[in-house]
Amino acid sequence: MPRFKLTVAYDGTDFHGWQKQVPPDAPEPLRTVQGVLERTVREIVREPVTLMGASRTDAGVHAEGQVATFATEATIPVERIARALNSRLPDDVQVIGAVVAGDRFNPIGDATAKGYRYSIAHGTAQGARRPLFDRHYVANIECVLDPERMTRAAADIIGEHDFTSFTRKNHGRESTVRTVFDCQVHVDAPDRLHIDVSGNGFLYNMVRIIAGTLVDVGRARKEPDAIPAILAARERAEAGPTLPPEGLCLMWVRYGDGA
Amino acid sequence: MPRFKLTVAYDGTDFHGWQKQVPPDAPEPLRTVQGVLERTVREIVREPVTLMGASRTDAGVHAEGQVATFATEATIPVERIARALNSRLPDDVQVIGAVVAGDRFNPIGDATAKGYRYSIAHGTAQGARRPLFDRHYVANIECVLDPERMTRAAADIIGEHDFTSFTRKNHGRESTVRTVFDCQVHVDAPDRLHIDVSGNGFLYNMVRIIAGTLVDVGRARKEPDAIPAILAARERAEAGPTLPPEGLCLMWVRYGDGA
Repeated sequence: MPRFKLTVAYDGTDFHGWQKQVPPDAPEPLRTVQGVLERTVREIVREPVTLMGASRTDAGVHAEGQVATFATEATIPVERIARALNSRLPDDVQVIGAVVAGDRFNPIGDATAKGYRYSIAHGTAQGARRPLFDRHYVANIECVLDPERMTRAAADIIGEHDFTSFTRKNHGRESTVRTVFDCQVHVDAPDRLHIDVSGNGFLYNMVRIIAGTLVDVGRARKEPDAIPAILAARERAEAGPTLPPEGLCLMWVRYGDGA
Repeated sequence: MPRFKLTVAYDGTDFHGWQKQVPPDAPEPLRTVQGVLERTVREIVREPVTLMGASRTDAGVHAEGQVATFATEATIPVERIARALNSRLPDDVQVIGAVVAGDRFNPIGDATAKGYRYSIAHGTAQGARRPLFDRHYVANIECVLDPERMTRAAADIIGEHDFTSFTRKNHGRESTVRTVFDCQVHVDAPDRLHIDVSGNGFLYNMVRIIAGTLVDVGRARKEPDAIPAILAARERAEAGPTLPPEGLCLMWVRYGDGA
């Protein structure tokens, strides 16, 4: 059965996250990206399909390059899929690419790398304006951050580590070892910065806790050389806070062999 | 009675425009910027006040620098006003400045110049992506625009003209002569541009119709030298369409004598 791979961007503000949810006592399913997109795919192919995504982003988290896949018997030219879906999708989700995938393509298991961006407005209680037009896309940090301190700490996030300190307790994963390929702090404006993190996989809340820990370094609540001890402790309480979802964006998912 | 002048920024998306409105058959007043801000000022000064704004922006129109004023007998230090208001205001409106104004300060009548920006995403039916994260802040123009053609036409908007062709019929103003100080087209990205217009005053919908006329030039539906004849016709139908409100932002209002 032909299988397609979609690249999907969305504004997570008005979604209850990626994953379909039907709360036991809710009159109807919550509005999720997977739910909206799967229903739209069904309208196009006119048969039941199951849409699987690479990453179960939380409520309020955005995506520039989520990856999703579905298989269908319908004969639909791949070059028409994006336009057909976009003409039916609401304006906060869009398909930015569609290609034919291999029969066994698994968007979660086959992913070799993911990239996330965490965006921050800072100093907003000390002279900088609160975010207004981008308030759904950045975290609002009231104190002033020192990006140079954050950059020094970010370098120690890179590498293969046990990230137990950087995930929620009872995360449910067998292994907490992940490899972070890169972790960089970029200054966008005097009161705006973002953190780009890429790795072979991420534990639950890992990027938001990395960002919260770098913020603690940036506001001098932690030292720039604190990361190795936090990693070694394997204790959630040693890391910084989990920053809010709106600052987080899934930028891309990469697959081996050009899949 | 001491009078204050506020500079106000807001995201117009979820407001029914600036001006307070109580539709005859509505159970409660519509959510407007004036209504929200006036109510918040009353909470601070603990007495009835009337808030007057410089520009009655329409529903969906944004502001970076709206000006509003109120007079109060309350003794509140001017340097505390912005913080006191911002701590109570919803996150889509903020006071970015507060100064003492003269007793007779009139934000409409005393204004000597206003600046507006109209922002556009274009080519979105010809390869460019539909706006996503900025979809509430730009107009979505499906065809590709030529900013060089638009720049040539924009130059003829500048000057003192009768702008009857660039306002809604039955606009209710005595004079339709206004002076446009500047009108510039700026390219922000291959699929993004904005038009900055400033003048001594604007007729109803004037900036949105100027933008729509420049878009007609940019898509080669009108010629770059078409503006003088459109102005001379003094006929709304000769100009281009009224572009949607979400692309428009009131950037600043200027007063003589540093008011």
